[in-house]
Amino acid sequence: MKISSFAAHSVKAKLQPHTIERRALGRSDVLIEIEYCGVCHTDLHFVNNDWGMTEYPVVPGHEIVGRVSEVGPEVEKFKVGDFAAIGCMVNSCGECSSCKSGIEQYCLQGFSATYNAPVNDPGGFTFGGYSQRIVADESFVLNLPENLSLSGAAPLLCAGITTYSPLQYWTVETGMKVGVVGLGGLGHMGVKFSHAMGAHTVMITSTPEKGEDAKILGADEVLVSTDGYSMNKEVGEFDFILNTIPVDHNIGPYMDLLKVDGTMCVVGAVEPLKQVNAAQLIFGRKKLSGSLIGGIQQTQEMLNFCGNNNIVSEVEIIKMDQIQEAFERLVKSQVKYRFVIDIKSMANA
Amino acid sequence: MKISSFAAHSVKAKLQPHTIERRALGRSDVLIEIEYCGVCHTDLHFVNNDWGMTEYPVVPGHEIVGRVSEVGPEVEKFKVGDFAAIGCMVNSCGECSSCKSGIEQYCLQGFSATYNAPVNDPGGFTFGGYSQRIVADESFVLNLPENLSLSGAAPLLCAGITTYSPLQYWTVETGMKVGVVGLGGLGHMGVKFSHAMGAHTVMITSTPEKGEDAKILGADEVLVSTDGYSMNKEVGEFDFILNTIPVDHNIGPYMDLLKVDGTMCVVGAVEPLKQVNAAQLIFGRKKLSGSLIGGIQQTQEMLNFCGNNNIVSEVEIIKMDQIQEAFERLVKSQVKYRFVIDIKSMANA
Repeated sequence: MKISSFAAHSVKAKLQPHTIERRALGRSDVLIEIEYCGVCHTDLHFVNNDWGMTEYPVVPGHEIVGRVSEVGPEVEKFKVGDFAAIGCMVNSCGECSSCKSGIEQYCLQGFSATYNAPVNDPGGFTFGGYSQRIVADESFVLNLPENLSLSGAAPLLCAGITTYSPLQYWTVETGMKVGVVGLGGLGHMGVKFSHAMGAHTVMITSTPEKGEDAKILGADEVLVSTDGYSMNKEVGEFDFILNTIPVDHNIGPYMDLLKVDGTMCVVGAVEPLKQVNAAQLIFGRKKLSGSLIGGIQQTQEMLNFCGNNNIVSEVEIIKMDQIQEAFERLVKSQVKYRFVIDIKSMANA
Repeated sequence: MKISSFAAHSVKAKLQPHTIERRALGRSDVLIEIEYCGVCHTDLHFVNNDWGMTEYPVVPGHEIVGRVSEVGPEVEKFKVGDFAAIGCMVNSCGECSSCKSGIEQYCLQGFSATYNAPVNDPGGFTFGGYSQRIVADESFVLNLPENLSLSGAAPLLCAGITTYSPLQYWTVETGMKVGVVGLGGLGHMGVKFSHAMGAHTVMITSTPEKGEDAKILGADEVLVSTDGYSMNKEVGEFDFILNTIPVDHNIGPYMDLLKVDGTMCVVGAVEPLKQVNAAQLIFGRKKLSGSLIGGIQQTQEMLNFCGNNNIVSEVEIIKMDQIQEAFERLVKSQVKYRFVIDIKSMANA
């Protein structure tokens, strides 16, 4: 099965059309004609080989939505013509305690990522959603509520579940005061979800200009982190804080905002945090944690929640040949709030 | 009420007998003739003014056991002759959400520490257990099971509750694998409690020689943290880790030992931790937390638990005039596992 696709070869991200071979449709596989694919910062890290683990040619993309065009004989959840979605995972061991608990994202063998993961299929690695088609086992394919905008739904598969999962795990609900730190691709979904779950939601940002947007997205309040007076007034007031800042930073001022027994969950900065003070943990029994996407069942729940609450991501749609420019703007945080590639723009590539 | 006591004035800890005045017995107060007082590292920090907050003369000591010699007219829990104990707190606001939840150690107004806390009583500050007598409101005085050795029970009031409380909070029980990092005053109590709660208890130490002792104290296994092979074999195996190391250190190798969703609680190092990697929190939804002593009700539960399970601290009894030497040995970790002052040795001071 030859599928015209797209691959990024060089650290300068000189992207070139590329023909890769996808695996033949297996008995429980679904073939999806991709319509939109979100652009996650992780994609750029892989294109640039920032983490030293990229296998070229890489086809990024793990925020994938489209329509089913073919199903294997044992497929039960999908029929041709259905909307379908794929997120960050396309397989896991299925045997370990994590997989058996439905948290495949913590598979003890390591889940198979949607792109750049070693597999026995043609090409030797998985290829992601910057592509016209994708084949995956139905157990890792999600049903997409029909009422959602397809382009807006794409980022739910990574940015959405990455923020929904910790808010659910730490049981965010009415009566709680929840802070979301950082208003980007992750943060704007955090605000929408926290609001929809009924919590008093506070956008915490260093950029006062983002305040108006945050309120439109669902924030009840905006707290400017550089305003010492306001920060001081909020010390000890928050039940839960979702921290989406993508790089190391001083977490101390945010830990101060937590109540006794409160938790701050980091989902952005996958790196060493050089300013963690154990005294802040000890005096208040506070928790610092992290969270990675979500399990398949929870991802489906999140999509259903979005369908019921009419939640999608705020997106800027681009054509495939605008990806280089999009990457450059992504680095400068010049996007509200997620780029999504219109895969139809590849038709003539 | 003049009571012969003992105060440490100088940063060189040149301790001198000193006469301080304690408050007159209030209506709900208890007067305790102190028999033993444990020596906590915090005492030395205060004597040396390491934290820049010491008010001299300071009378340290918050691991206090003795016998009631007088009670106010409204006292209900104690009668003259009862064993009684006082830990790190002698008062709290009683009004805040923490106090109302029985976690006075996290009182939002700050609890009144047993020594060096500002009060309206004579002297202007609380005075602790390196002293022949102490007066406190009965609501902060604990009942001591009659079957426990008095000297061995003294350290339960700080080292005991500091380790018991997090083990209870994180619901340590049979079927769990629990690590205790560091075998000192705190760690040896952590091992005893974790064992008594039914967990498979692993002493994690950089000092192989401590292994035999740890097993006598109740450890099922000993894991030497400098043995890379053994540490690697235990990656992802622990439900909970109690970290009693008193100074900053690289927590990474211990975080690796945790299962998905596992927690490490820091009770020793009240200072910045310079090596925390958010990636370790994110890949496994692991929690880093801390814990401070315990509430009054939980401290009583801990003492009852000790009475039922015949648990006391391992102690070396010293005379009051050996305190300087004891402090010096404490700094060198030359004690198994807690110094306790025989307060009767002050009789002729």
